[in-house]
Amino acid sequence: MRIDIITLLPRLLDSPFSHSILKRAQDKGLAKVVVHDLREFSTSKQRQLDDYAYGGGAGMVMMIEPIDLCISKLKAERDYDEVIYMTPDGELLNQGIANELSLKGNLILLCGHYKGVDERVREHFITREISIGNYVLSGGELAAAVVADAIIRLLPGVLSDETSALTDSFQDDLVAPPVYTRPAEYKGMVVPEVLLSGHQAKIEEWRYEQSVARTRARRPGLLDE
Amino acid sequence: MRIDIITLLPRLLDSPFSHSILKRAQDKGLAKVVVHDLREFSTSKQRQLDDYAYGGGAGMVMMIEPIDLCISKLKAERDYDEVIYMTPDGELLNQGIANELSLKGNLILLCGHYKGVDERVREHFITREISIGNYVLSGGELAAAVVADAIIRLLPGVLSDETSALTDSFQDDLVAPPVYTRPAEYKGMVVPEVLLSGHQAKIEEWRYEQSVARTRARRPGLLDE
Repeated sequence: MRIDIITLLPRLLDSPFSHSILKRAQDKGLAKVVVHDLREFSTSKQRQLDDYAYGGGAGMVMMIEPIDLCISKLKAERDYDEVIYMTPDGELLNQGIANELSLKGNLILLCGHYKGVDERVREHFITREISIGNYVLSGGELAAAVVADAIIRLLPGVLSDETSALTDSFQDDLVAPPVYTRPAEYKGMVVPEVLLSGHQAKIEEWRYEQSVARTRARRPGLLDE
Repeated sequence: MRIDIITLLPRLLDSPFSHSILKRAQDKGLAKVVVHDLREFSTSKQRQLDDYAYGGGAGMVMMIEPIDLCISKLKAERDYDEVIYMTPDGELLNQGIANELSLKGNLILLCGHYKGVDERVREHFITREISIGNYVLSGGELAAAVVADAIIRLLPGVLSDETSALTDSFQDDLVAPPVYTRPAEYKGMVVPEVLLSGHQAKIEEWRYEQSVARTRARRPGLLDE
């Protein structure tokens, strides 16, 4: 899988993609993440990338031309399954969408900044709009990193133990049960008896009950779906 | 405002906090973000931070002691308004929560990794659990960066034009209207006439109608609230 990220602030994404599983996935050749500096696609002398909004008001708007040039260059090099714009009012990312995107081949993620991109970009070049949640960030860079992380960790071979992702929250529409590790007692705080019992069937039953109870308390919507 | 982030992977957060508004806010002294390496709080010879889950199963669990030691040290130095655990099954971050947290003084954000932290950490040391969305990431680091960004950009003086955040999506339970910038025509794609009219009342009316229509189409839940 290949993910191309288009941004005004390429350096912001240096460290997230050079650590942890995002680095490991790239080292193993399972995923390739390429960050593109939009500034290289500006045709103006001042390397201008944004301008005032038509109609007035606070905040700058990202111009259409550099984005068009960058996306067009990428599309001339290979086919893309989706050209995704990261925006607060996009389709809300959830585990199902992450699963679906992890099956794609090539993706472009366009990061908005300031007041966002010129609407004509969204109308003509974008195939899908994704939001990581109902809140506003200073730019789409962290959102793009979140999407890349959520997808790449699902690729076969990326996590050291493949069954690990399958027992995550949401994969079966339940949140995960409580987990404990050594020591069994810490400052008087103890681990539930059943987990120390060695009785695997009872342990699985306890975990399932805990998952259902926790989902009911914290994400009742998942149980209705 | 001060935000302390506790993590197994401190380097992952290097670049997000040294660019864009997160850097500017710190340079101006409006916010301070301190990233703590959990490894420094391990008392074992091997600097162990995680161990197998009691009861078996795939995935490692973060141990209680290093987290206890790190949080205790911080709490001995200053008072914290919240000790927040970043977890997929926490309270879902939204703009209202971001607004609320931006009014706090000191926050701790604990990043989970692998299967998460020993449940006793959540029971005894955590005052609040936050999720940035219904999906699983490889760790809480990007989620913590998202929370920090969503909060810090709201602090007075951080955005260059303070009115800018007020016209963001969600601040009035509506998503933002479409925005356009120069040129007025690009490869035959034009800007809506009204935005070029100079008639400010008509422009505001158009923007409001667009916001409502877009909210109805994309986030109908916001209109019911």
